[in-house]
Amino acid sequence: MIRVAVVGATGYTGAELVRILSVHPHVELTMITSRQYAGQPFSDVFPSFFQRLDCRLESYEPKKVADVADVVFTALPHKLPMAIVPELLGEGCRVVDLSADFRFSDPDLYEKAYEPHKARAFCSEAVYGLSEVFAEKIATARLVGNPGCYPTCILLPLVPLVQRGWVDLSHLICDAKSGVSGAGRSVSLATHYCEIAQGFKAYKVGMHRHRPEITAILEGLGQGRPQLTFVPHLVPTIRGMLATTYVQLSEHRQESEVRACITEAYAHHSFVRVLPEGRFPDLAFVRGTNFCDIAVRLDPETGVLILISAIDNLVKGAAGQAIQNMNIMCGLDERSGLEALPPVI
Amino acid sequence: MIRVAVVGATGYTGAELVRILSVHPHVELTMITSRQYAGQPFSDVFPSFFQRLDCRLESYEPKKVADVADVVFTALPHKLPMAIVPELLGEGCRVVDLSADFRFSDPDLYEKAYEPHKARAFCSEAVYGLSEVFAEKIATARLVGNPGCYPTCILLPLVPLVQRGWVDLSHLICDAKSGVSGAGRSVSLATHYCEIAQGFKAYKVGMHRHRPEITAILEGLGQGRPQLTFVPHLVPTIRGMLATTYVQLSEHRQESEVRACITEAYAHHSFVRVLPEGRFPDLAFVRGTNFCDIAVRLDPETGVLILISAIDNLVKGAAGQAIQNMNIMCGLDERSGLEALPPVI
Amino acid sequence: MIRVAVVGATGYTGAELVRILSVHPHVELTMITSRQYAGQPFSDVFPSFFQRLDCRLESYEPKKVADVADVVFTALPHKLPMAIVPELLGEGCRVVDLSADFRFSDPDLYEKAYEPHKARAFCSEAVYGLSEVFAEKIATARLVGNPGCYPTCILLPLVPLVQRGWVDLSHLICDAKSGVSGAGRSVSLATHYCEIAQGFKAYKVGMHRHRPEITAILEGLGQGRPQLTFVPHLVPTIRGMLATTYVQLSEHRQESEVRACITEAYAHHSFVRVLPEGRFPDLAFVRGTNFCDIAVRLDPETGVLILISAIDNLVKGAAGQAIQNMNIMCGLDERSGLEALPPVI
Amino acid sequence: MIRVAVVGATGYTGAELVRILSVHPHVELTMITSRQYAGQPFSDVFPSFFQRLDCRLESYEPKKVADVADVVFTALPHKLPMAIVPELLGEGCRVVDLSADFRFSDPDLYEKAYEPHKARAFCSEAVYGLSEVFAEKIATARLVGNPGCYPTCILLPLVPLVQRGWVDLSHLICDAKSGVSGAGRSVSLATHYCEIAQGFKAYKVGMHRHRPEITAILEGLGQGRPQLTFVPHLVPTIRGMLATTYVQLSEHRQESEVRACITEAYAHHSFVRVLPEGRFPDLAFVRGTNFCDIAVRLDPETGVLILISAIDNLVKGAAGQAIQNMNIMCGLDERSGLEALPPVI
Repeated sequence: MIRVAVVGATGYTGAELVRILSVHPHVELTMITSRQYAGQPFSDVFPSFFQRLDCRLESYEPKKVADVADVVFTALPHKLPMAIVPELLGEGCRVVDLSADFRFSDPDLYEKAYEPHKARAFCSEAVYGLSEVFAEKIATARLVGNPGCYPTCILLPLVPLVQRGWVDLSHLICDAKSGVSGAGRSVSLATHYCEIAQGFKAYKVGMHRHRPEITAILEGLGQGRPQLTFVPHLVPTIRGMLATTYVQLSEHRQESEVRACITEAYAHHSFVRVLPEGRFPDLAFVRGTNFCDIAVRLDPETGVLILISAIDNLVKGAAGQAIQNMNIMCGLDERSGLEALPPVI
Repeated sequence: MIRVAVVGATGYTGAELVRILSVHPHVELTMITSRQYAGQPFSDVFPSFFQRLDCRLESYEPKKVADVADVVFTALPHKLPMAIVPELLGEGCRVVDLSADFRFSDPDLYEKAYEPHKARAFCSEAVYGLSEVFAEKIATARLVGNPGCYPTCILLPLVPLVQRGWVDLSHLICDAKSGVSGAGRSVSLATHYCEIAQGFKAYKVGMHRHRPEITAILEGLGQGRPQLTFVPHLVPTIRGMLATTYVQLSEHRQESEVRACITEAYAHHSFVRVLPEGRFPDLAFVRGTNFCDIAVRLDPETGVLILISAIDNLVKGAAGQAIQNMNIMCGLDERSGLEALPPVI
Repeated sequence: MIRVAVVGATGYTGAELVRILSVHPHVELTMITSRQYAGQPFSDVFPSFFQRLDCRLESYEPKKVADVADVVFTALPHKLPMAIVPELLGEGCRVVDLSADFRFSDPDLYEKAYEPHKARAFCSEAVYGLSEVFAEKIATARLVGNPGCYPTCILLPLVPLVQRGWVDLSHLICDAKSGVSGAGRSVSLATHYCEIAQGFKAYKVGMHRHRPEITAILEGLGQGRPQLTFVPHLVPTIRGMLATTYVQLSEHRQESEVRACITEAYAHHSFVRVLPEGRFPDLAFVRGTNFCDIAVRLDPETGVLILISAIDNLVKGAAGQAIQNMNIMCGLDERSGLEALPPVI
Repeated sequence: MIRVAVVGATGYTGAELVRILSVHPHVELTMITSRQYAGQPFSDVFPSFFQRLDCRLESYEPKKVADVADVVFTALPHKLPMAIVPELLGEGCRVVDLSADFRFSDPDLYEKAYEPHKARAFCSEAVYGLSEVFAEKIATARLVGNPGCYPTCILLPLVPLVQRGWVDLSHLICDAKSGVSGAGRSVSLATHYCEIAQGFKAYKVGMHRHRPEITAILEGLGQGRPQLTFVPHLVPTIRGMLATTYVQLSEHRQESEVRACITEAYAHHSFVRVLPEGRFPDLAFVRGTNFCDIAVRLDPETGVLILISAIDNLVKGAAGQAIQNMNIMCGLDERSGLEALPPVI
């Protein structure tokens, strides 16, 4: 059994980690921490789990965590992990960090998008945890920077095409839509039921910090520097994320070739489902799962390639992929603990 | 392994059976049938299950079903099972029927609420599948009539109190609220998103056919004939059911006594969670689970006992309880296959 | 033209007052105030109103308000109006207060449910603004305490029956359901989209402060002291409120007699719609309107009278009824400014 | 008073026409028709309108309609109006048709997207009813083809820019999102609450029939033939539509120039609101109104111009614009009857 701790267990992402890890067949969840709720049972914070997860939240102390955990998940707002992660690594833990702090191998890029980085030395060591793409490096990583939800959803269909050089990187357009849980559990007018239940809007237009994360990974594929226009929108659903990406092909390809390319790239992985012709993803079809569903459509009139991809932002977009990365790091089947079926409805 | 078939696998209840049974550790799901979709893969009807449940739907033939199944779940609109169930029993199968057809041991009561019964002889044999209450009889039953969703939600808190004679049966009032999936998957203006998404209403006021089902079971407890006023309402949620039941106590009791009575009654069962003082159920806390959450509140001003209970109408209110009954019938732990954790959100 | 000010214009209730008053044919809206947003255009706070209501919010000063307003609406959290209202009355304004501060003619009852009252002398003067019931007193009132949303919805069907002595006051049960806007615009986990969008729960069970308000009004009808069990629930809709009230009749009545009694009581009013036999209210049918829809159903099996009533909590339950009261105070048709049609959907 | 009839009054669009026209200050609504509900009061079909719109639905007969109406709105599924509209014109009525049948001046384009046209002769006469753009022709039209909802939302921000030659027409990408009422009132699994309430998906990807409508109008501006990639999505809201359009500018422009261009183009119109820098549309802000809200954002990194526009699909996208067109045809202020304020929430 792998001994695991979750630092920051009471945000939506942290709680989702607890939910999945607590029934993972190869994991012993030894500690969950929370600044705000230390001392309380987890099920006091999330009453759904009454009589199922009544374990107590503790306050974070690096030595105490390291004593009981081989792998630590840090699910904290960005800026906090850059202080904590070096301690945990120093104590001999392996870490999957779910914040943005270790997603950029170049700390200058991080600082441009976020703020001064206090653990610059660790950035280049950290492996970007897009499981299907970087599995090999993840396997031996001491520190994984778990990808953002938008980057996960957008990169999975794009990467195989970019790797083959099929994509005109100078004209990428991505129109993305996220459910409300992407905004986290903290309260604000922006998550007030009445303000959004029958609304829909774009936000952070051209300014979202997931853009430099996406472009850095794409650039790292060695096919050039992408020009990505990225507009996120807020959908009135609890969970889920769908991205519609518009690609100019650098040379003519059939729709079926494109579909085959993506299918092959993920042939040895379980969580990417490339849909047959004529079928399209729906948030509802991936809810509660670690799947990324992908559809490919080449517009016959304009020649534009339309990639549509959907994930559950809290699972494949956060906690699920983090656990998939842990599985890879520990030599387990990547599916371990993650095979929950999607809901019928 | 128990060999299991689901007859009527493409309604919400049938599909939920397939979802749970397909990963049940002691079940081999050998056949799923559908009149409408025979020949198609299950995942064509429910695209969520693409690459996970691609097994084909077959058309129903009693012999073919009996050849491959020890236990058969019939998840069909009422009236159909009364024709099919006798055949299946005749072929040696044990049956859990999820319609109303075998919920009344007295077929006259069925006929009063529904329509002429064509398999009256089987009514008295059928065991009412309220798992926690009738586990002993269920264990040896050949035919289980699985309870309606409202009766499940309303009876679980009431039965222990009625059994002790604490309830004035002449003044029962139950105000119940169901999510939309209770209306099934067939299309109608009543389930059109635009008509209900921001609405809330009572329906079948004083005329719902679950009332005679509830009163028959309560009367069977031998404490007298209940007078139950029952008003169901429609909540704009996909799943879930919550009932608020107002009880006049037949003699004075403390709130804590009432809570203890219910807690004790279900002490040897896992799916009834009696909440501590001051906590109340929420549909959201039982979604996707087989739990029935119960809160007890004695109004100090009026002396009225308020019982609040919540279930997932498709799980504890249908497919989950049916599988719990199968577990009991087959000598398994009642929890087998049903331990999915509730969602964080 | 009546010169009108709204003190506290940026909560949902205050904003709804502004919306309706700004197009009221006999009103000049001369001032709107806000502590938090003073100096900003109203449309900065509610961007829907860009280019339609760009008037600036001001900070509250009693003399400035009185200079420009004949009638003042105070739409503030309770406790604040008890300081402000006496000032405004002293300056010669007439006031409709939408908080709880002036709903109890007996300040002791207020203090029992809320907190010490600092303007006790004004309580007995204030008229309870249930428009259809107390129109005569409202017409000449200097100060109206606008009813709570639950009391409005529950009292309208009950009052005529209690007045005739048909109701057994010792056994009243009211199961009420409110949309989320009832919780106001301030942010909290309780209004976080993800926590409630697919949930449903009871809250403040047996402890809601609208209960003493309802029982005080019923007792004032002179038929005795009511025993009211009251359980409010939260529905995942933006607006609306529906109450299901269970009544024991003190003597036998036909359903049609009951319906006729309520119909007659409101024959000279426009906003109470008593529905024909077999029709029931829906939140969706009163959204955005000042209607209270009422259905009557006598359960033939139990003899219990079921009253179902629905309002828009922000209109008939708050701003709309406040304006109806202003109309009555100023000798206008009670419908003036309030005739918006309900939405098709 | 203009005498007006609505043919097809019981779809969502027809009912919305009835709702708005019934309180239009210059309109007498003399007849409403329905095949399915002829003989019934309108409020039986839409119970919201009980006691407000109890007028009876009639069956359609051209002469009877022409006897009582100067202007007729035909709100029927496409294909039906091509039979009816010529009759009504023959009887001397002026017609605003809300189907697709008279949106294409070239019937060949219609036939390519829809089906054989049986009233080809009338296509060239019909004026495309994009009110702000074609007001002059609408003023004298006998027949107006009211635009589709997507074309209205997408064309309003684009037209002024295309007219000035600023848009590279060979690279237009439009990612559009519609609420569920766009699918109409007929029942189907696609509008079943449970299937969509927590979902989000693309549909008719690259195949939606509004694309040729948009491109035909853009081409008619004389700046060339556009290449438009168009992907519609379904949002779980009752009403509303938001389009995010990605434009390559044909020459460099400042964001402020673009904003000014659109603002000027609609300076003499009331229903287009160009938002200030940094503000973006939300479905919720235009609900129930005839507004089209537009935001302009030039992505500084990629140079792509992002146009975001939002309307209420049933108002500006259908009934509201149809009435705006009638106002223009009859020499009224275009705002007449359409000044409802948006909801606070």
